[in-house]
Amino acid sequence: MDYVYGPGRNHLFVPGPVNIPEQVLRAMNRNNEDYRSPAIPAMTKVLLEDVKKIFKSTTGTPFLIPTTGTGAWESALTNTLSPGDRIVSFLIGQFSLLWIDQQQRLNFNVDVVESEWGRGADLDILESKLASDTAHTIKAICIVHNETATGVTNNLATVRKILDAYQHPALLLVDGVSSICALDFRMDEWGVDVALTGSQKALSLPTGLGIVLASAKALEASKTAKSVRVFFDWNDYLKFYKLGTYWPYTPSIQLLYGLRAALDLIFEEGLDNVISRHNRLGTATRLAVEAWGLKNCTQKEEWYSDTVTAVVVPAYIDSSEIVKRAWKRYNLSLGLGLNKVAGKVFRIGHLGHLNELQLLGCLAGVEMILKDVGYPVKLGSGVAAASAYLQNNIPLIPSRI
Amino acid sequence: MDYVYGPGRNHLFVPGPVNIPEQVLRAMNRNNEDYRSPAIPAMTKVLLEDVKKIFKSTTGTPFLIPTTGTGAWESALTNTLSPGDRIVSFLIGQFSLLWIDQQQRLNFNVDVVESEWGRGADLDILESKLASDTAHTIKAICIVHNETATGVTNNLATVRKILDAYQHPALLLVDGVSSICALDFRMDEWGVDVALTGSQKALSLPTGLGIVLASAKALEASKTAKSVRVFFDWNDYLKFYKLGTYWPYTPSIQLLYGLRAALDLIFEEGLDNVISRHNRLGTATRLAVEAWGLKNCTQKEEWYSDTVTAVVVPAYIDSSEIVKRAWKRYNLSLGLGLNKVAGKVFRIGHLGHLNELQLLGCLAGVEMILKDVGYPVKLGSGVAAASAYLQNNIPLIPSRI
Amino acid sequence: MDYVYGPGRNHLFVPGPVNIPEQVLRAMNRNNEDYRSPAIPAMTKVLLEDVKKIFKSTTGTPFLIPTTGTGAWESALTNTLSPGDRIVSFLIGQFSLLWIDQQQRLNFNVDVVESEWGRGADLDILESKLASDTAHTIKAICIVHNETATGVTNNLATVRKILDAYQHPALLLVDGVSSICALDFRMDEWGVDVALTGSQKALSLPTGLGIVLASAKALEASKTAKSVRVFFDWNDYLKFYKLGTYWPYTPSIQLLYGLRAALDLIFEEGLDNVISRHNRLGTATRLAVEAWGLKNCTQKEEWYSDTVTAVVVPAYIDSSEIVKRAWKRYNLSLGLGLNKVAGKVFRIGHLGHLNELQLLGCLAGVEMILKDVGYPVKLGSGVAAASAYLQNNIPLIPSRI
Amino acid sequence: MDYVYGPGRNHLFVPGPVNIPEQVLRAMNRNNEDYRSPAIPAMTKVLLEDVKKIFKSTTGTPFLIPTTGTGAWESALTNTLSPGDRIVSFLIGQFSLLWIDQQQRLNFNVDVVESEWGRGADLDILESKLASDTAHTIKAICIVHNETATGVTNNLATVRKILDAYQHPALLLVDGVSSICALDFRMDEWGVDVALTGSQKALSLPTGLGIVLASAKALEASKTAKSVRVFFDWNDYLKFYKLGTYWPYTPSIQLLYGLRAALDLIFEEGLDNVISRHNRLGTATRLAVEAWGLKNCTQKEEWYSDTVTAVVVPAYIDSSEIVKRAWKRYNLSLGLGLNKVAGKVFRIGHLGHLNELQLLGCLAGVEMILKDVGYPVKLGSGVAAASAYLQNNIPLIPSRI
Repeated sequence: MDYVYGPGRNHLFVPGPVNIPEQVLRAMNRNNEDYRSPAIPAMTKVLLEDVKKIFKSTTGTPFLIPTTGTGAWESALTNTLSPGDRIVSFLIGQFSLLWIDQQQRLNFNVDVVESEWGRGADLDILESKLASDTAHTIKAICIVHNETATGVTNNLATVRKILDAYQHPALLLVDGVSSICALDFRMDEWGVDVALTGSQKALSLPTGLGIVLASAKALEASKTAKSVRVFFDWNDYLKFYKLGTYWPYTPSIQLLYGLRAALDLIFEEGLDNVISRHNRLGTATRLAVEAWGLKNCTQKEEWYSDTVTAVVVPAYIDSSEIVKRAWKRYNLSLGLGLNKVAGKVFRIGHLGHLNELQLLGCLAGVEMILKDVGYPVKLGSGVAAASAYLQNNIPLIPSRI
Repeated sequence: MDYVYGPGRNHLFVPGPVNIPEQVLRAMNRNNEDYRSPAIPAMTKVLLEDVKKIFKSTTGTPFLIPTTGTGAWESALTNTLSPGDRIVSFLIGQFSLLWIDQQQRLNFNVDVVESEWGRGADLDILESKLASDTAHTIKAICIVHNETATGVTNNLATVRKILDAYQHPALLLVDGVSSICALDFRMDEWGVDVALTGSQKALSLPTGLGIVLASAKALEASKTAKSVRVFFDWNDYLKFYKLGTYWPYTPSIQLLYGLRAALDLIFEEGLDNVISRHNRLGTATRLAVEAWGLKNCTQKEEWYSDTVTAVVVPAYIDSSEIVKRAWKRYNLSLGLGLNKVAGKVFRIGHLGHLNELQLLGCLAGVEMILKDVGYPVKLGSGVAAASAYLQNNIPLIPSRI
Repeated sequence: MDYVYGPGRNHLFVPGPVNIPEQVLRAMNRNNEDYRSPAIPAMTKVLLEDVKKIFKSTTGTPFLIPTTGTGAWESALTNTLSPGDRIVSFLIGQFSLLWIDQQQRLNFNVDVVESEWGRGADLDILESKLASDTAHTIKAICIVHNETATGVTNNLATVRKILDAYQHPALLLVDGVSSICALDFRMDEWGVDVALTGSQKALSLPTGLGIVLASAKALEASKTAKSVRVFFDWNDYLKFYKLGTYWPYTPSIQLLYGLRAALDLIFEEGLDNVISRHNRLGTATRLAVEAWGLKNCTQKEEWYSDTVTAVVVPAYIDSSEIVKRAWKRYNLSLGLGLNKVAGKVFRIGHLGHLNELQLLGCLAGVEMILKDVGYPVKLGSGVAAASAYLQNNIPLIPSRI
Repeated sequence: MDYVYGPGRNHLFVPGPVNIPEQVLRAMNRNNEDYRSPAIPAMTKVLLEDVKKIFKSTTGTPFLIPTTGTGAWESALTNTLSPGDRIVSFLIGQFSLLWIDQQQRLNFNVDVVESEWGRGADLDILESKLASDTAHTIKAICIVHNETATGVTNNLATVRKILDAYQHPALLLVDGVSSICALDFRMDEWGVDVALTGSQKALSLPTGLGIVLASAKALEASKTAKSVRVFFDWNDYLKFYKLGTYWPYTPSIQLLYGLRAALDLIFEEGLDNVISRHNRLGTATRLAVEAWGLKNCTQKEEWYSDTVTAVVVPAYIDSSEIVKRAWKRYNLSLGLGLNKVAGKVFRIGHLGHLNELQLLGCLAGVEMILKDVGYPVKLGSGVAAASAYLQNNIPLIPSRI
């Protein structure tokens, strides 16, 4: 099973799944339990309340669905929309592309707003579409908060402003898979109607939970939405919430305890400190990329992502060779370039349970790999640039002062 | 988190989720990994081949879906059928009821064949329906192999015989959730078109994998099936199988390694030995029930289940009190009676990673509880009856001879 | 590594090492740490205070030594005595024998008081020896609280009474390996000078910690004791206690966290409830032995042990066959008869993290094995006798009421 | 328990205890077992054979003692020597000092050969002592292979050459605590009589096993050695080796399985590859220290240690501030300066389960800390120097080619 063993610890810098804290591994190291005993509902009740905090929401209704991000997307769409409904959806990279593919296969009428990969959602087009949609044919806006393939963060506050400016009733459905619990996400303030993430991203758990938060407006929409759904149907959950047993089908006992531990760690660090830490990690990575003389795939600073950086390599280098070499020689896992940017970018995921020295080890590794593949990097240059920033900005660990 | 701590080990005798072997817990006690590295596809390739063995199939195509049994049901249905398709479906207990509910909500035309709870599927009615369906309007037969709510095992060999007798082309879709890997299940021999189970049942893993096996005929049907599906779409899997990367979305690394360990244990014991062990556990349980003077909810021996026994209590006892008391006093988890048999039966799950002395501990516990709630049981009687049988039938442990 | 795999859970009923609670396994599932960081001393400080509670002592000085019970014995002796010192030591079974062997090899002048195996320490002889020792040549009394080989518990309160009656200053050194944390042990009240146990016994941890508690008088004795010692020298510990760093050499990080979790569980259950539970387990076992028509190796009720029962088999049966068969056929681990009682007794350990249904599973197993080896036991008889008692005496689990 | 939680992974760079591989944590994550069942002796037999390989010995007799390095020292001394025996012992740092303290307290006649801390053992003095010892009053030479406090590796081949040159029969007792399994250690070739290590060092296990290997000559010496010993007595082990039960007292089941896993990893990587990896890590560290303009505590290249580097800080800096800051701000654990070099050096442990990118993360951290405490380091300089070397020397991971 471990035939690909390499000495020392694997350096996991794909933008998900990410490193799991020992505390979470411990919490999950347990036998199954009867989920109908009093213990699991009591635990679930508190978990549902607590999970809302990472969305900065007090009003949303959460669903912990035994599925992946793809399933969470489907849950968001099928519970709020009916076949044929018009959606405005932004295509800015591989994951927004896959979501749009799902939207189309679920028979929605998808109005795709495409940007060059490396750029954010074109909100001017959103504005013009809303402006002209006085009949309110647009039922939902679908947008990824952070496009994992290109390292682009969209500005959701602006999206909300535009919707408000036109007093447009469209639902705002947000993929927060690689943002929630790492980037500042404000469900209530931004009037997001459905937000979702997956357990294996910034929450630093194994894959297996699609976490969906629905606004009151989204719940209302679910009452009339005609999309066929059973496994993903929110009503089945709501029925069991009322009964106080919470689960329409068997949950993963281990993931529930894992989520409890993960939330405890986040609350202990403080969500805003978690977000600041991700900003430090993102900034440090970008400074290294700059020092190496390479380009960030993200074209403008306003879209820089604090959870993943896609690095553009010179045309004479195949970025997938970098990823292969990282794994084969340095026990380092980097993200591939996907689809349009395949071979052109490699990605450094810097989200979840991660600190600055771990990142610096990764950056030092990337430098050696760049040299391996013939790029004339000055070894140490990226680490120096990142360190100069970090040494000024890392706070003391509160529990150790 | 452990505020419901009780001394000693929890005795887990619900019919799922079941006890996880230490070997599997160990295998799952690991950090995340990049699922796009060469390691995970190589592992997946072998897993897909090996998982077929527990279905006794060499020809099926397996899907390891990050979902529950409910999701596996949906996968089976939506990939093979189109809205409006006529299905014959057997209602014999709570889980077949829930599946039928799903079938109806997915807009199939469900021809429900109901039996009294405690009886198996009425195959005479199946025969008459097939006999009269010369136009082949029936597209699928949906049947649970083992109804977990009543402890009833249906005879799938007979179902196949009837289908063959009428040369009826209907697909045979089987819920094997509480049977596969515990009862004798013969996918190929019985011509099952889709069979499915969940990881938390006889495989003795945590919840999180819906395991679906499709026959060639089912795969063929999936090409024209018009049910809307994305997350559950087999085609997305097949596309990645061809690419050799295997996963359309992020799998649980931990469950893959857990499945590997679970299969290794099953193959080491020998699948047919696993099945024999379950027969011993089931027989011993039934002998105890008889010795207590109580009735098995299953009305005929031909339907007796070797994975779960639903025990009927006298009318003056509320069976849910038995389940509560088991948990509150004896750290024993028993299964509730559900829906029509709520309050009337309690269930002893005896499947998965379990041996005879564990079961005898449970039976001794049940005897004390029966006395607690006022049933005049002779303490030791059930254990004596079960032991008399077991002492003659337990084989030596092969690795220890 | 698992070539001796048997289906289901191993039933571990040797009198140590015993079953580890999942909570403890979780706590120990962790990477190493720098034991010189502020975290480990802070944790150790509290542990040292808390560990005294399981000895019912407020005045003792504890030592957590990375060793086994044998090492803890050596620590007790070499820190308090000088070569040539006269000791009165009771030989009542294999473990007191081994301790006496150690005492002799450490060059003490051992005055052995032997009893027939199955009987407790002969306290009349102690009395006569003390009576005649007006010159106080006896420097220490060495006694096992519970002889693990025969299941005999000595009466320490009486030992203290006799010492007091003669106002004899001899140190009282007690092996509490298979008693402390399971039997009522009163360090301060009984004036015990050194008491010791091992982590793998009633504390339900892995082997690796010898836990020694020294009275003020014992500490005083250590200042003049001339036995050569370095690894086991209390002074090295005391020096580091004063410094606040606590460890003269590297401790096992994992065992410290494990001990923390083990104590938490014991305090949550309540030490006196733990002791009561062991009394229930012991009583139930003895009732079963009686029902089988077999003899307890322990000759009088006053010496009955609540942590281990040695069962005498008829002369025509070799008790080691019972132990072999238990392991080979039932995945049950029983204790062998040792030395003088080899082949004559087998032992049921019933200590540590264990509840009543686990024990009943074991007893049911023993019945089948007895039949296997030709003893005419009535199957179910022992379980019935034990259950009749337990059903009247098991309390509700407090956290679940 | 986790009140000193810091985000991300702790960077553990003390020279022991070191990082435990996930494979080892998994292997140890298990319940206790009966160590008298056939499984544990069978496992032990193979372990004893395999553990000799890390000493490069085919002729030694191994002892796996439930103790620490301090206990292993005591085992080596008391089994081979008698009180009053003359020992030549080299004092070159804190750990050789502690061993000498033990030797003196065990009543040997210790002939201490002291070197300035930072220098190796003075072998010229050894030569002159042996030359003049025609009466062979010297019974043993005690030497640490690698002094953990100063990062000094002694040349054991030369020690053997000198002993041979004078045909001196003194036993050669070697502390290999921070060398074996990381540095090239040749028990048989160098004629070492007793070599020892601890599980928490290069073997990358938790603390708890003192691993001692004795030559035939040492075993012979143990027959007449008069030092008092019981817990550490080799004869008790040898008696049980003959019986095939192997254990004179209860071993830690978990550490045995952990050792199995640890050896498997080492053999998979290849012991000589493990040694090369440590050479790379040591070289890289020294290059970084040089780049920072700091001095290695080790005064000559011939004594450079590949497992730990003690870095001398300028007089105006207190090295313990560096260690504190590392922990408080960077979640990095460095080694303190001990005794004579307290405040003057800090130590980077680079042994055990560790790879190059982990080290580079540590080095990047040290750079920032140096700046924090006022040393004018050029950020990135050490990483650059180390990387330049590593990028030329890291091999591909064999299992991934």
